[in-house]
Amino acid sequence: MTFDPDTLTYDARGLLPAIAQDADSGDVLMLAWMNREAVARTLETGRVTYWSRSRQAFWVKGETSGHTQSLVEMRVDCDRDCLLVLVSQQGPACHTGRRSCFFTAIRDGDETEIMAPEA
Amino acid sequence: MTFDPDTLTYDARGLLPAIAQDADSGDVLMLAWMNREAVARTLETGRVTYWSRSRQAFWVKGETSGHTQSLVEMRVDCDRDCLLVLVSQQGPACHTGRRSCFFTAIRDGDETEIMAPEA
Repeated sequence: MTFDPDTLTYDARGLLPAIAQDADSGDVLMLAWMNREAVARTLETGRVTYWSRSRQAFWVKGETSGHTQSLVEMRVDCDRDCLLVLVSQQGPACHTGRRSCFFTAIRDGDETEIMAPEA
Repeated sequence: MTFDPDTLTYDARGLLPAIAQDADSGDVLMLAWMNREAVARTLETGRVTYWSRSRQAFWVKGETSGHTQSLVEMRVDCDRDCLLVLVSQQGPACHTGRRSCFFTAIRDGDETEIMAPEA
């Protein structure tokens, strides 16, 4: 069946969450948001494109930083209201310079930084 | 620093997205939502507990189905508005009987089912 971004379920803002996972390591890198057009652009261009809620604009990941995400595969969940994008990540995914945005673990009730910024 | 669920950023509904990842395989299993209390209960009990938006109730994963998620580690993202929960998943995570909710891939523009329900 041909995939149509219109068949996804978006929230009241017209957005759905997209989880970016490193296609090689399996690491979960980040979560951001896409609208219908961002989903379509990601598939058309192969460059992962989000919708920035703060800037209210399309956000081609890495366009400014160079830390691009090339789409390896897009997957849809059972409720069609969330996406998993397997990516080839160039450099760190996080704006803090870390590989992943999930660099803070809760261990024994304390916050522990488990990942340093890349050089 | 002691972790306090009150320091997370919740949306207008008091929720944030939580990504469940299989701690062994690295597979992304599902995305669901937690409120402040669900975060606290998950950490206290070690049983991953979401907030069901449809039922407007706490949802101890697997309480009905037996397909429980034991918490291995909770991680917070850089914006503190999303969680990654590494879990030990008993049985399928998806209500369709599949290991992961992300069983539909977009390949060459078509939707392709890449995972069958478990026996």
